[in-house]
Amino acid sequence: MSTHSPRTKKSRHFQDASQDDTKRLRTRALILDTAIAVMAKNGIERTSVMEVAEQAGLSNGSFYYHFRNKTELVEAVAGAVAAALVREVDEAISGIEQGTERVALATMLFIERGLQDPTWGRLIVHALSDLGEFREQIFAGIRKDVGIGIRQGYFKTVDSPALYAMLLAIVSAAMREALVKRDDSIPAMAAQAILRVLGIDIVAAETVVTNAKKTLRKGHVWSQRPQRA
Amino acid sequence: MSTHSPRTKKSRHFQDASQDDTKRLRTRALILDTAIAVMAKNGIERTSVMEVAEQAGLSNGSFYYHFRNKTELVEAVAGAVAAALVREVDEAISGIEQGTERVALATMLFIERGLQDPTWGRLIVHALSDLGEFREQIFAGIRKDVGIGIRQGYFKTVDSPALYAMLLAIVSAAMREALVKRDDSIPAMAAQAILRVLGIDIVAAETVVTNAKKTLRKGHVWSQRPQRA
Repeated sequence: MSTHSPRTKKSRHFQDASQDDTKRLRTRALILDTAIAVMAKNGIERTSVMEVAEQAGLSNGSFYYHFRNKTELVEAVAGAVAAALVREVDEAISGIEQGTERVALATMLFIERGLQDPTWGRLIVHALSDLGEFREQIFAGIRKDVGIGIRQGYFKTVDSPALYAMLLAIVSAAMREALVKRDDSIPAMAAQAILRVLGIDIVAAETVVTNAKKTLRKGHVWSQRPQRA
Repeated sequence: MSTHSPRTKKSRHFQDASQDDTKRLRTRALILDTAIAVMAKNGIERTSVMEVAEQAGLSNGSFYYHFRNKTELVEAVAGAVAAALVREVDEAISGIEQGTERVALATMLFIERGLQDPTWGRLIVHALSDLGEFREQIFAGIRKDVGIGIRQGYFKTVDSPALYAMLLAIVSAAMREALVKRDDSIPAMAAQAILRVLGIDIVAAETVVTNAKKTLRKGHVWSQRPQRA
């Protein structure tokens, strides 16, 4: 991978992830990568199956072997984008040990990444409203950090799918509002709401988020950013 | 309205709401009422525009004057159902003064009503994922009760659209999980999460929700229930 330029890396994200898979999965990954590139250029609404197939160098027939229609394609792209961002955020905060700060940073990074690239943002909002086939991968990120906080004794909560669904719903609603309102304070607001749900009191939640903002400004996290910027 | 039987009331819900309006709005309300009845019988997926038009005694042409397609109809029905439930819940808790208990009761009643009638439940989840034309009516319910709690000094939070969007997202995610899992503990879990976001500490949030459950069991609220059961 180190021989690719950042640009090439970006456009081959899902293909790289499946290098050892069968031809079927490689073609599927090629379609997802191509669809993201076309959607970033034209917007999600104005992206046609025909253009994605053409850009990927595939016949319509071979496209429809992988995806029944545009709805199925958008769902797969949205889920793949959300799952990829969960992995990116996880790598970005790999040096952070405290569960509370991990949750705050992950929330803010996730939402801010969606705002940097509104096509990704809209796809992620879409994915979080119906987790589909990527449900486990998307749950994994938040479950890991909440688990760390529970073991460290910070979070007073039970580990349950309904809890993760509610926390992801907060992230999704915050990202949607932030995309519409262009309000920079929303990622921190979402991080505080999530910490509160997890049982952190308001004063402590504010301190954690203030520290997380400082960490973000110092550039101690998000080392992966240039890869996708 | 007192001359209607409960049954008649139910099937004319949206028509009653527009008695003084023009013919156009009455026909629109007739379509919404008919669509709800057909969806409750057949499910949302298997409801066709043709059947709704036929049951409403309208030609396809006159149906399409009001709604461009099924997607538009489902969105309007979902928004109308969610807005109607907000009004019902507001009436049901009209005797409760404490902001914290109002928020807990409203959350649990709203979700439990969705579970009693899964068609309504799915329509409400749909409405909350994209608030559309009923946004203000749906926001009004939660804004009122949160406002009461802020004025009473219980809630430590700012009054902002992003906050309401996050709280409604919790309600929506909880209702979706509860519909899938048939887990009775989810409405109370959602009420606690919402109180925590609003700045109530975990011990106090648990007490409020325990009291709200007692109030529900005693039947002190939800006097409107027979109307729609």
